[in-house]
Amino acid sequence: MPKQRIAIDMDEVMADSIARFQEWYGRDFQVELTLETLRGKSPYEAVAPEHQPSLRAYPNAEGFFRDLPVIQDSQRVIEELNRKYEVFIATAAMEFPNSFLDKYQWLQRHFPFLHWRNFVFCGDKSIINADYLIDDNAYNFDGFRGVGLLFDAPHNAHETGCRRVHSWQEVADILL
Amino acid sequence: MPKQRIAIDMDEVMADSIARFQEWYGRDFQVELTLETLRGKSPYEAVAPEHQPSLRAYPNAEGFFRDLPVIQDSQRVIEELNRKYEVFIATAAMEFPNSFLDKYQWLQRHFPFLHWRNFVFCGDKSIINADYLIDDNAYNFDGFRGVGLLFDAPHNAHETGCRRVHSWQEVADILL
Repeated sequence: MPKQRIAIDMDEVMADSIARFQEWYGRDFQVELTLETLRGKSPYEAVAPEHQPSLRAYPNAEGFFRDLPVIQDSQRVIEELNRKYEVFIATAAMEFPNSFLDKYQWLQRHFPFLHWRNFVFCGDKSIINADYLIDDNAYNFDGFRGVGLLFDAPHNAHETGCRRVHSWQEVADILL
Repeated sequence: MPKQRIAIDMDEVMADSIARFQEWYGRDFQVELTLETLRGKSPYEAVAPEHQPSLRAYPNAEGFFRDLPVIQDSQRVIEELNRKYEVFIATAAMEFPNSFLDKYQWLQRHFPFLHWRNFVFCGDKSIINADYLIDDNAYNFDGFRGVGLLFDAPHNAHETGCRRVHSWQEVADILL
């Protein structure tokens, strides 16, 4: 029997891009962007209107996706998942073309057990053919043919109507 | 009823990468790489063994995928397909990380009617969820859930067992 297939999003699921928003926002405006402020909001919605253009430019800037911290337990659990399932990494990189190489190199560095054949840089994730999708954006489950697992993140705090997982350990408990 | 979805490969289907192999090979070895020589073979298999390492390095080199000629009629037919279907571009870019930006910019330049949401850079195309896949490599139809159309190219001349299309006009005749 063929293995089931899991597609996994990168930002806020494997890579802590909020940490980069916090770092750069603090650097540019000397204001702390707290996780409490980010609850139920995108980073853009969480800051003063006059700061929004700067924040919107961050993900397009050179180096935004470089050396992002790894989300806790993701390496250990994804390595275990990779033995039992076919694991694909599906990231909406097309929105930020400057991110391509950084994302590719980040995956090779922190998840060396994954093959590049299983990396997918896309826009609309309805193109993904998999049995599970682990993602922090519920809209990515629209039109997805498999089971969506919403990975808990500050911005999706008020999202209801899909199954939420709070940690990689919880993903392991469900899928392993 | 939702539109059916067509996934389309880039190299040798939309973009003439053989032209670049011919150009660079002629430049480096003063030998013409003819389409007849390439029949049933990859470019690597078509040249003298001592030239193979150079040829294998070409697709990883800066600029290989930049400004590739557009395959005849692909713009006109894909624009028409894009009205009737959801069109996604699915290219195995992961093999050549230096190609990411060149491929992205080539698509934006030559196919401006396509949105980046519909670009997919992947490795293994079995991840693609679509009704049709137009591709010059028959192995990409393995595990594909839809209908594969093999786009005629010198290297696939001896491929049997899948439906072959010889031109974009023939694709139009079938799908429009």
